[in-house]
Amino acid sequence: MNVVIVGGGAGGMTAASRIKALKPDWDVKVFEATSFVSHAPCGIPYAIEFDFPSDELMYYRPEVFVRERGIDLHMNSRVVEVKKGKVAVDESGKVNEYEWDRLLIATGASPKIPDVDGKDLENIFTADLPPDADVIRRAAKSAENVAVIGAGYVGIEMAEAFSHLGKSVTVIEMADLPLPNFDPEIGEIVKKEMEGRVNLRLGERLEAFEGRDRVERVVTDRNEYRADIVVVGVGVKPNTELAEQIGVRIGVTGAIEVNRRMETSVENVYAAGDVVETEHMITGRKVWIPLAPPGNRMGYVAGVNMAGGDIEFPGVLGTQITKFHDLQIGKTGLTEREARAEGFDVKTAFITANTKVHYYPGATKTFIKAVKDKETNRILGAQIAGYEMVAMRTNVFAVAIQAQFTTKDLFFSDLVYAPPFTPIWDPVTVSARVLRF
Amino acid sequence: MNVVIVGGGAGGMTAASRIKALKPDWDVKVFEATSFVSHAPCGIPYAIEFDFPSDELMYYRPEVFVRERGIDLHMNSRVVEVKKGKVAVDESGKVNEYEWDRLLIATGASPKIPDVDGKDLENIFTADLPPDADVIRRAAKSAENVAVIGAGYVGIEMAEAFSHLGKSVTVIEMADLPLPNFDPEIGEIVKKEMEGRVNLRLGERLEAFEGRDRVERVVTDRNEYRADIVVVGVGVKPNTELAEQIGVRIGVTGAIEVNRRMETSVENVYAAGDVVETEHMITGRKVWIPLAPPGNRMGYVAGVNMAGGDIEFPGVLGTQITKFHDLQIGKTGLTEREARAEGFDVKTAFITANTKVHYYPGATKTFIKAVKDKETNRILGAQIAGYEMVAMRTNVFAVAIQAQFTTKDLFFSDLVYAPPFTPIWDPVTVSARVLRF
Repeated sequence: MNVVIVGGGAGGMTAASRIKALKPDWDVKVFEATSFVSHAPCGIPYAIEFDFPSDELMYYRPEVFVRERGIDLHMNSRVVEVKKGKVAVDESGKVNEYEWDRLLIATGASPKIPDVDGKDLENIFTADLPPDADVIRRAAKSAENVAVIGAGYVGIEMAEAFSHLGKSVTVIEMADLPLPNFDPEIGEIVKKEMEGRVNLRLGERLEAFEGRDRVERVVTDRNEYRADIVVVGVGVKPNTELAEQIGVRIGVTGAIEVNRRMETSVENVYAAGDVVETEHMITGRKVWIPLAPPGNRMGYVAGVNMAGGDIEFPGVLGTQITKFHDLQIGKTGLTEREARAEGFDVKTAFITANTKVHYYPGATKTFIKAVKDKETNRILGAQIAGYEMVAMRTNVFAVAIQAQFTTKDLFFSDLVYAPPFTPIWDPVTVSARVLRF
Repeated sequence: MNVVIVGGGAGGMTAASRIKALKPDWDVKVFEATSFVSHAPCGIPYAIEFDFPSDELMYYRPEVFVRERGIDLHMNSRVVEVKKGKVAVDESGKVNEYEWDRLLIATGASPKIPDVDGKDLENIFTADLPPDADVIRRAAKSAENVAVIGAGYVGIEMAEAFSHLGKSVTVIEMADLPLPNFDPEIGEIVKKEMEGRVNLRLGERLEAFEGRDRVERVVTDRNEYRADIVVVGVGVKPNTELAEQIGVRIGVTGAIEVNRRMETSVENVYAAGDVVETEHMITGRKVWIPLAPPGNRMGYVAGVNMAGGDIEFPGVLGTQITKFHDLQIGKTGLTEREARAEGFDVKTAFITANTKVHYYPGATKTFIKAVKDKETNRILGAQIAGYEMVAMRTNVFAVAIQAQFTTKDLFFSDLVYAPPFTPIWDPVTVSARVLRF
């Protein structure tokens, strides 16, 4: 059997590894357009903050896949055409054709660039592929003023990196609060934390970049800001072009539609990772929330099924976490706004709690916004901000929501307690009590 | 209605507070034998380590219960007799009688003292009530050599406290490894960590304490050790005496038997906290695992039901966590040994993983021992050791086990990921994969 995988990111390489583990005799080819494999953009802000080279961002080196796992890995090889049973690949200027019995499209997502004047000036960057980390790091060395467009995850992490490096950072966000996919209670906390470190401009719309060759200024509908470099983090779009060539159905979200086995609408064509939409575990609706861990698991599922197995990907909750310096911010399930938009009759709780028993040194405040469905008492979502243990509490909610816990189930969860770690009534438990049973 | 609560610890005060919240007109009397309320022994090692006075160990001050919550709180009042409809209370030497319509027994548990020669010598302590913290702190000031009997939770935490204070600490444990209620893979890790800080004597049986008035030496079956003070942490026993007076049935574990509403075998007599046994969420069997968070929740359940409500306590998983200096150690559900003893056909995984993405500074190793039932693939338990995020991963397992997750459910849990927090494949997910679906 000939397997072709388009894209050597985390999803593609996970699938390739799985197929070779299950079917060692099969020919598994991976075509990766860059000189990196097994990479993810999530590390780019940290390569800048801690100043390490981009090849560190690969989870595994190419040798691991080639020598240890027996994958026929083609780097710097861009698939230019996908046809029934064949792909055409541009390898160093020469186009070669390869045959496939089963195909995986794992082409990922790419950053959106706002269509404004000056968008092609030098020193305007996005955080996409590992080499972006190197060019941004190099450009940052001589930069004094940095503008970050967007205060979502990428914007916040980039703002941390540059303020850590002592740059003067302006963050420009269209919405009224940073992290606009959170409810405002949490956004306000993030806002306060950011305002202490960067020039945070909320409710401002980007209108243009200005400069001679390089960017010099960012112009908004309200103001203009000096900028020696600009990083744009205003969202991503799925790279569906190759899939469309072969007639794969695109879903309501604009990403590739797949079933739970990661099969597309075209026979023997699978898709996985940031390029596909999936089911939301709560609503059952199709969503496109491109994030690394589900992308990897989708690759795993695609690999098992492509190798003749049978396993289903159950969907996502959109669990995510980020930080801005000391403030950690996590989210799982639906926000109040999202839950209302889905038609739920919701009750919410917003609590402030200490992270430890009062007498143990070093307790800090943590904030939880939790959402339940009034009709069933099911937990629908939680957003947490604080200075420690945000990952822990977000994960407790994530597993509880996956398990369809009611507030009462969550109240009676048998969570850890010891004075160095938590208060006796964990804030999660408190939020369940405040939401009522 | 007259409610009498015997014992002003966490369980008793939670119940009292709940009853007054639901029935503000009822007369709720709490009799507490000491001058402390709302206390728990779990803080005692930290009062010693960080040198703060014992009244800090109260979660709420007595005033909160009396003024804000309207509870008729009698401190230094020891209930000496429980009869049908009445209790006799020794209050500063005078015995008063009080009537009750509903009674809650929340008398907790007390440390066991090994019955060996010299056990009544001075400077031999247990960690029970807040004042114990003060006497140990005072005695420790002039002590050079400290012996800790037992390497369970209390022993480990006391050993940390004294080694933190620069004392020469000997820990004596009968079993072959510290934390004998963990599987040996985790015990070995704890052993290594302890051996770097204290004189850890495993497989030695305490035979006697020796000294003139004060303890001077601890004698075991193999050796003897100098000790200016001794702290004994060899387990606790439930304080069931008052319950037995009124004919309350004692369960198979030796603690008070209650149903899920926290009702004892005697009408209108409830019991909660460390003095009762409860159901294990996995096996449905009665267990006695006295720990603070379930004790509090039992108090909550007892309070609601005593006030005319209807709520059930679903049981426990025995989730717990402790630390020895930098090493954190957590546990939930069944160990391999426990699972086999319960008749499960088990498969286990023991994995070592990094706590963060390889390129993010400060990653450390973490160790997970996970146990599943081969027949159903259900997760039965996990034990985790490591230098960070042990609470998080123990809680993920705790909620997953409560939800009766299979290894596949856990593998597909949508957990947080970002480079500063976790690797893309969380070690919990990896352990689920190693256990197979």
